Amino acid sequence: MSVSGTADSGTRLRTADDDIARRFSESAAVRDSPVMPTADFHDWFAACRRRNDYRVTRVPFAQLDGWSFEPDTQNLVHRSGRFYSVQGIEVNTDRREVHTWTQPIIVQPEIGILGILVREFDGVLHCLMQAKMEPGNVNTLQLSPTIQATYSNYTRVHGGNSIPYLKHFLSPRRGRVLVDALQSEQGSWFLRKRNRNMVIETTEDIPLHEDFCWLSIGQLHELMRIDNLVNMDARTVLSCIPFATPTDRLSTPDSDSFGAALANSLSSSSRALHDRPGLLSWFTEFKARHVLTQRLIPLGKLRNWIRTAEGIHHEQGKYFTVLGVDVEATNREVSHWAQPLLAPRSQGILAFITKNIDGVLHVLVQARTGAGTYDVVEMAPTVHCAPDNLGEGSGDPRPHFLDYVLTARPDQIRYDVIHSEEGGRFYHAQNRYLVIEADDDFPIDVPDDFIWVTARQIIDLNQHGNYFNVEARSLLAALHTHALW
Amino acid sequence: MSVSGTADSGTRLRTADDDIARRFSESAAVRDSPVMPTADFHDWFAACRRRNDYRVTRVPFAQLDGWSFEPDTQNLVHRSGRFYSVQGIEVNTDRREVHTWTQPIIVQPEIGILGILVREFDGVLHCLMQAKMEPGNVNTLQLSPTIQATYSNYTRVHGGNSIPYLKHFLSPRRGRVLVDALQSEQGSWFLRKRNRNMVIETTEDIPLHEDFCWLSIGQLHELMRIDNLVNMDARTVLSCIPFATPTDRLSTPDSDSFGAALANSLSSSSRALHDRPGLLSWFTEFKARHVLTQRLIPLGKLRNWIRTAEGIHHEQGKYFTVLGVDVEATNREVSHWAQPLLAPRSQGILAFITKNIDGVLHVLVQARTGAGTYDVVEMAPTVHCAPDNLGEGSGDPRPHFLDYVLTARPDQIRYDVIHSEEGGRFYHAQNRYLVIEADDDFPIDVPDDFIWVTARQIIDLNQHGNYFNVEARSLLAALHTHALW
Repeated sequence: MSVSGTADSGTRLRTADDDIARRFSESAAVRDSPVMPTADFHDWFAACRRRNDYRVTRVPFAQLDGWSFEPDTQNLVHRSGRFYSVQGIEVNTDRREVHTWTQPIIVQPEIGILGILVREFDGVLHCLMQAKMEPGNVNTLQLSPTIQATYSNYTRVHGGNSIPYLKHFLSPRRGRVLVDALQSEQGSWFLRKRNRNMVIETTEDIPLHEDFCWLSIGQLHELMRIDNLVNMDARTVLSCIPFATPTDRLSTPDSDSFGAALANSLSSSSRALHDRPGLLSWFTEFKARHVLTQRLIPLGKLRNWIRTAEGIHHEQGKYFTVLGVDVEATNREVSHWAQPLLAPRSQGILAFITKNIDGVLHVLVQARTGAGTYDVVEMAPTVHCAPDNLGEGSGDPRPHFLDYVLTARPDQIRYDVIHSEEGGRFYHAQNRYLVIEADDDFPIDVPDDFIWVTARQIIDLNQHGNYFNVEARSLLAALHTHALW
Repeated sequence: MSVSGTADSGTRLRTADDDIARRFSESAAVRDSPVMPTADFHDWFAACRRRNDYRVTRVPFAQLDGWSFEPDTQNLVHRSGRFYSVQGIEVNTDRREVHTWTQPIIVQPEIGILGILVREFDGVLHCLMQAKMEPGNVNTLQLSPTIQATYSNYTRVHGGNSIPYLKHFLSPRRGRVLVDALQSEQGSWFLRKRNRNMVIETTEDIPLHEDFCWLSIGQLHELMRIDNLVNMDARTVLSCIPFATPTDRLSTPDSDSFGAALANSLSSSSRALHDRPGLLSWFTEFKARHVLTQRLIPLGKLRNWIRTAEGIHHEQGKYFTVLGVDVEATNREVSHWAQPLLAPRSQGILAFITKNIDGVLHVLVQARTGAGTYDVVEMAPTVHCAPDNLGEGSGDPRPHFLDYVLTARPDQIRYDVIHSEEGGRFYHAQNRYLVIEADDDFPIDVPDDFIWVTARQIIDLNQHGNYFNVEARSLLAALHTHALW
């Protein structure tokens, strides 16, 4: 690898990584910015919405232009053989109540880029965000990263318009990499899907296209309190950003404030209930001792799933439906296309339970296995379920802590926002994201599948891929909105 | 997860992870120990060798008791269906000069444990090491971790004797986990093989079986300078141990001593040529932009490989031979068995080139793809090749830096030891491990597949699996033997 010029004070060596966390933390402290005042943001966003015309129509599979069911397998594929396909999967695992099942799953082996370009304005890092339409969005337009590009996109398989700002994310690049990790997406719906989550810093003057704006992290944290505004791709990239509480901002251990305990939890000098080897060992144990085998099977050979002209659905009406949409848009790379989407049948509950343990906020995460999980388990929210899929015949017991979350008192609820999952693959997929502060009498001893971790530990592990699932990463981004900088 | 009692000074929280690195570093400083003086060690080891009788005989496949070629595939399998098998693989990748090839490969999907039990004697951590016979060892007996157990072993598939000290490594356990990571093994010979590398600390009195002894890390570092003594399993576990140079032991940047530059390189306050995001991004780029597909095929369908009654070998006599051995031993769980082994045809060269950059030692690693690599690439030694496999008809160009290593002056050679690869799967597999100190005029700008990293960066990433291949991990353990504590 060649070395870019970073000479300062006679050394060729880089400054410490802590410096990056410090700069992001300063950006998070800026809750409003003159570059794009939050008050103006909403007008700008509304204008983006008005400026473009979108029409998304559910259509039967027979009208899904470019897509068809492969004769042998009945897999749903694009005529180019690219993009993604909907296939069948047979799962065997000792990690779920039901040990074997089949289901449709989205197969997209290529790795895309979700990237945010950042730049300093008046010494504060700002993120270049995009008002972007996706066909599965409930409200069409959501606030998205600078780029979200599949490999097919950015290598121009579909021959669309070029992607603005893409060059900043492709190597060799002039900017500085602040984040670059392969992170998983929904393990229940994707087979081993990963995208590259990137944050690149530029010092250049960047032309501002009309659907883009610069926002501080603090502004983004405020906007993350609004339902269905900050999209999944933005949330997962934001979750990878390292923050750190400076030592002089740490609170005394006897503070009982949520924000103070979170500040302590974000510090690299904070102590944790489990040290790093203990935490890694808990995780390694699941991979070493449990089994997840994933076998692709023809979509036509699924058990318990029914295909009609309009959709592929579960015989009990649970889980999700695979359906088709026809899309017309005026500001996308391609202005008219059709595609299949996966539509969940009900809203999920995704919750972090947190607890102040000796002055340091800890988050309760669980080891979870989905049909498409990359390597047996990932760490997931304390509660990660769709309650409507439970109950009679599901084989699933009532999830741990679900009732605790659903009966939390208002003063325990630190975050409660409806967010959408990626609208390029999922249709009206809304989940309720909650951060709950547990009472003092909430147990420290938890079932084997659960472990208490600090915000610092999550941030450090999340620099590497496949530790936290995408739902936990959204909640990590949500948790950060609460930090007192 | 339940929480073990760690109460001190009123907090339930763990001390910082740095404490573990400090204690290991103190153990590394103890170059001889009264618990088992190094002078006595050699007598003890010779006595172990005399006490047991081993006979390893090459036999034709027809005499390989319990093993046979499956009728349909000609895969070499055990009658129990367990242990491992030798199958064929077809590899497609844009990461090697030859983009597609077939070869035999060892398939062993289950995850075993390589574990070292440690205990303090007079305040110094000591490792419980074993004099262990493996049929593929050139010298029969090598110094091994406390346990090396396949999943079949420790769940007693073969009905052998019980494994001493196993209980310390199985959950729930009383000891404290200091290391627990899933690490890969030889990507050229194993399909996506991983073992659990563990270090567990006990405070109990441990009965000492006759083939076991306690040694400090410093003693192990001395023993790692002897050819074919410390086995691969011990080296990989040792490589996962975190060390750290205390701030008050750091050297001035203008020191030109190898040991001083290494001490700086081990410190968490040292600067590096590439910061962590830059290093992770370099690695992520390979996974995102390159392809490795691995397809198991029948062993009988290999191109360019020939099976005789005695072995399966490459038509040009390169790479390796699959052969069979019959084994009799008096102190193994089972006293008589047969098994296939993979015998490399020549000795490999595995070398780290190091360079003092502004007072901090940097190691040059490369991104490397093998037939069985878990996820496209791992970081490998600067030079990782078997020179006899090169040359006419191989399609491989001369590897970068091979000639620099082979022509290094004696004063540049900091480590030069022949080590064996795992004798339970490989027959007389010896490689030459070298650490070379580059001259000042060695370039900092290197080809894209290479990157300079500090010892601290390697140690931190190596807490997670699949960053460094097993050969690089052996060299990391070798590098540690040079640190001045």
